[in-house]
Amino acid sequence: MASPTGTQRAVRWYPPAYDIRVETVPVPQIIDPDDAIVKIKLAGLCGSDLHIYRGHEDVDGDLTCGHELIGEVVALGSSFHPNAVGRPELYSTLRVGDKVVSPFTVSCGECHFCRIGFTCRCIHSCLFGIPTLPGGQAQYARIPKAGGTLFSLSALSAASLASGKPGIADVAESSLLLLADILPTGVFAALQVLQHPKISPLLARTAYPFSSFVPNGTVSDAVSAPLQREDRILTIAVVGLGPVGVCATVSLLDMLSTLEANDNMEFRVLAVDPNESRRSKMEAVYAAIDAKDRGSGPLIVTDIQEGKSIANDWTNGAGCNAVLEVVGNNSALTLAYDLVRPFGLISSVGVHQEPPMPFTGREVYNKNVSFDFGRCPVRAMFPIALGILLKRQDVFGSIGEKASLIEKIVSFDEAASVYEQFDKGQCGKVLFDPWL
Amino acid sequence: MASPTGTQRAVRWYPPAYDIRVETVPVPQIIDPDDAIVKIKLAGLCGSDLHIYRGHEDVDGDLTCGHELIGEVVALGSSFHPNAVGRPELYSTLRVGDKVVSPFTVSCGECHFCRIGFTCRCIHSCLFGIPTLPGGQAQYARIPKAGGTLFSLSALSAASLASGKPGIADVAESSLLLLADILPTGVFAALQVLQHPKISPLLARTAYPFSSFVPNGTVSDAVSAPLQREDRILTIAVVGLGPVGVCATVSLLDMLSTLEANDNMEFRVLAVDPNESRRSKMEAVYAAIDAKDRGSGPLIVTDIQEGKSIANDWTNGAGCNAVLEVVGNNSALTLAYDLVRPFGLISSVGVHQEPPMPFTGREVYNKNVSFDFGRCPVRAMFPIALGILLKRQDVFGSIGEKASLIEKIVSFDEAASVYEQFDKGQCGKVLFDPWL
Repeated sequence: MASPTGTQRAVRWYPPAYDIRVETVPVPQIIDPDDAIVKIKLAGLCGSDLHIYRGHEDVDGDLTCGHELIGEVVALGSSFHPNAVGRPELYSTLRVGDKVVSPFTVSCGECHFCRIGFTCRCIHSCLFGIPTLPGGQAQYARIPKAGGTLFSLSALSAASLASGKPGIADVAESSLLLLADILPTGVFAALQVLQHPKISPLLARTAYPFSSFVPNGTVSDAVSAPLQREDRILTIAVVGLGPVGVCATVSLLDMLSTLEANDNMEFRVLAVDPNESRRSKMEAVYAAIDAKDRGSGPLIVTDIQEGKSIANDWTNGAGCNAVLEVVGNNSALTLAYDLVRPFGLISSVGVHQEPPMPFTGREVYNKNVSFDFGRCPVRAMFPIALGILLKRQDVFGSIGEKASLIEKIVSFDEAASVYEQFDKGQCGKVLFDPWL
Repeated sequence: MASPTGTQRAVRWYPPAYDIRVETVPVPQIIDPDDAIVKIKLAGLCGSDLHIYRGHEDVDGDLTCGHELIGEVVALGSSFHPNAVGRPELYSTLRVGDKVVSPFTVSCGECHFCRIGFTCRCIHSCLFGIPTLPGGQAQYARIPKAGGTLFSLSALSAASLASGKPGIADVAESSLLLLADILPTGVFAALQVLQHPKISPLLARTAYPFSSFVPNGTVSDAVSAPLQREDRILTIAVVGLGPVGVCATVSLLDMLSTLEANDNMEFRVLAVDPNESRRSKMEAVYAAIDAKDRGSGPLIVTDIQEGKSIANDWTNGAGCNAVLEVVGNNSALTLAYDLVRPFGLISSVGVHQEPPMPFTGREVYNKNVSFDFGRCPVRAMFPIALGILLKRQDVFGSIGEKASLIEKIVSFDEAASVYEQFDKGQCGKVLFDPWL
């Protein structure tokens, strides 16, 4: 297939803010041997697109919007050939015609940060949908460092077809699009909590520091009483129930039900949002999850005031072991701090802006708070996120139903309108089909 | 032995600041069945005593100073008896005449936080040396919840004598006093880093997320290149080389040399302080450590500017994997942020005050920084700290020598003078002998 040329339609943003236009622009071309050109099948509108939309990111040039995309490879740079030895595997296996999903940032797969799995901080990292890297709300996109950045869904489809097990081939493309950002980000928010050494004692029934550095048998430590059942009830709050918050809650429940089965601990989840329509969506999603996969702990969907009160009642005033902050502003961070107990942790995956952290040194010292901030390394989260996506088709598999995360698929003609609705909280997750 | 009565000498502080007096006050008495009265052998002057000394803690009443103490039990409340079943072990085993060390805060050993090892956030937590709980710079101190709070050195001495191995019985009391606060706090600073899931991939040679939640075999993740030798070089900075910073560095080196031997990783340590006399002390301590226990990684002791430059050179501009912040002010936190790499972590054990955190939301998001803030749970760190104390008598065993952490032992008559010298950085760690 020859690389496409000519022009295409794209959703474009103009500074300073709120200015969305659908324009005709050139089809992107291979400009580096590591590039791929992808014909876009679906592109997502994401909560973090609103930061640029609202003019909060100090961007002063116009741009092609969007950082969530799924599509088909239509052209590959010269780095892609069967003998691309010593490079990430896709350089030798990816073919024109393969279906791919792209994380929302470029990652080379070859630098220190990529090798260690911190792919969103690749030394070549670049966000799609900025002036220097046109985004996915177009008919075609250029993917830099494509052998490191992309996932090949074709390879996974072939594997699942061969195994006879349900897999990628059985999943709607609208569902696979969630792998570009929001489902891995939700997984990341949950995983940062459940892997933290302040949570480990509870899972392992061994008091902190639960460490191989504790000298074996040198010192007996019989002062403290053994862990009791109530010590092993993990109480976690999710703050923010937009699409990423729902993904975080679904991921968290999946992991907690696994831990409950393996480690015999208990859990309670509080899902908090001031917005009633978001709460209703979360409740519908929870109701749609197969009961055997939700674990036996309660999940309560609630507003801020009631959330604080329930956290207090559940824990005798101690607070939550951990809070997933999935909003990205200081009122959400402050609520997370209020909800968390001493020695608790806050996993903050929201995209924060210029305001200073809303905490004094004394506040964070006095509560022994741990924080994990920052962007999801989507490429590294892909295996876990895909596992949850395949298992949770009851939630992720539908469009426009009460429990579905995706509200509708629209054409670019509706772009200005859906940006405005999404900004005002008047619609949920929307996808664009660039060919409608 | 009858409980002592009458009066005693004590080092006392008066608001608003810098007012240290030696006064005659009543000997404390048992006021709760869980109390013990300890005759103090040695009491430490700690960097965090300076927060009150300088009037930074908004304390408006006079108080008996000090939160580091070692001594001998002279009276026990009625909770202490051989049949104190279902309580922490010391309630049935502690005897008048036993040698004890107290952590700098009270911990009951029985609440959720104590059971799980977060002893400094015990629901009965109280710092020694505040108006409501007289501190250790006196001849006697009352220890609340003593069966949970205290460590019995007598029990440990007996065990080490019985085993024939060198142990507590061979260690100077001035050295054991370091267990009250600064050595466990240094251990805690190092441990928070080495146990963090963002460091685990490097130790385990497995890319992040290095998780049991990664579905086994469902998805192959062959995109990234395997970890290389340079990915497994752990570069850690210690910011602040006061007595706690030196303890943190010594603890860190001990743990790193163990990891190097077990996991075949490499390490580099940067010890940073603007104060030349602190740097000289750190260099002398490092030189005194038995070479086989330092591991093979370099340790460079340096000032701030050169520190930034070395971190940059060592890591090709990436920055340190982790920073131990052992100061407790915003310039130290800012330096830690400047030194740390994306996906790095800052373990902050300094006692921070009222100023807001010196970071914007965007800064912490853009670097994917993790923070662990707060007070050391001394009681929980005791086994590891004691192991290091026993092994590192080359550093912790002497007084007044070039490499010793303790500069001198003085009488209360010198209290006002050593507080002033310590505040001005004109002396190192000083202990009081209340009976001189």
